[in-house]
Amino acid sequence: METKPPYYAVVFTTKRTSADAAGYVAMAQRMEELARRQPGFLGLDSARGDDGIGVTVSYWESEQAIRAWYLVAEHQEAQKLGKEKWYEWFQLRVCRVERARSFQQSQAAPF
Amino acid sequence: METKPPYYAVVFTTKRTSADAAGYVAMAQRMEELARRQPGFLGLDSARGDDGIGVTVSYWESEQAIRAWYLVAEHQEAQKLGKEKWYEWFQLRVCRVERARSFQQSQAAPF
Repeated sequence: METKPPYYAVVFTTKRTSADAAGYVAMAQRMEELARRQPGFLGLDSARGDDGIGVTVSYWESEQAIRAWYLVAEHQEAQKLGKEKWYEWFQLRVCRVERARSFQQSQAAPF
Repeated sequence: METKPPYYAVVFTTKRTSADAAGYVAMAQRMEELARRQPGFLGLDSARGDDGIGVTVSYWESEQAIRAWYLVAEHQEAQKLGKEKWYEWFQLRVCRVERARSFQQSQAAPF
């Protein structure tokens, strides 16, 4: 992701219930697919460990873009199901990215 | 974590190499232990999936607190080893948390 700060990040930390694992995976994939099509979407990082705790960070050009994604009807349904059955708890934080840097291991030449 | 925004978050997204798994786990635990003792530390969320991608978000009262943690000698050694052997790549973002909310599944009474 080459965007220069400032931009926005939504940090979504969750603890999964044990309910409906297959349904959850399908929903999560669908939400990522939908988010990628939204105006102002910049990227997404996501990981979940064996303890059921996951951290998903999505990046957006503006707070308006985050609001528009929040209001997408299919996303609102997913939010409702999240509270009803998928998450034991979650924390959601909207952040302004002030500085960013990255590192890439240099690779040996392939020949 | 009950702190009210604004506060700061460091989003650290990493891809592990396959090198020195035991050493990596010991280092990660030690860094968490040290970070928790730093002035201005508020909390930490972390997850790594089977694909080797991890997202760790640490929360801090101020940018000064982040800078002070960055400069802790043992942390600087870990940063050096991270580039030398533990991470294929990483991205580091310093963010200002603007808004936060949380959800907790209501529990049935235990009797």
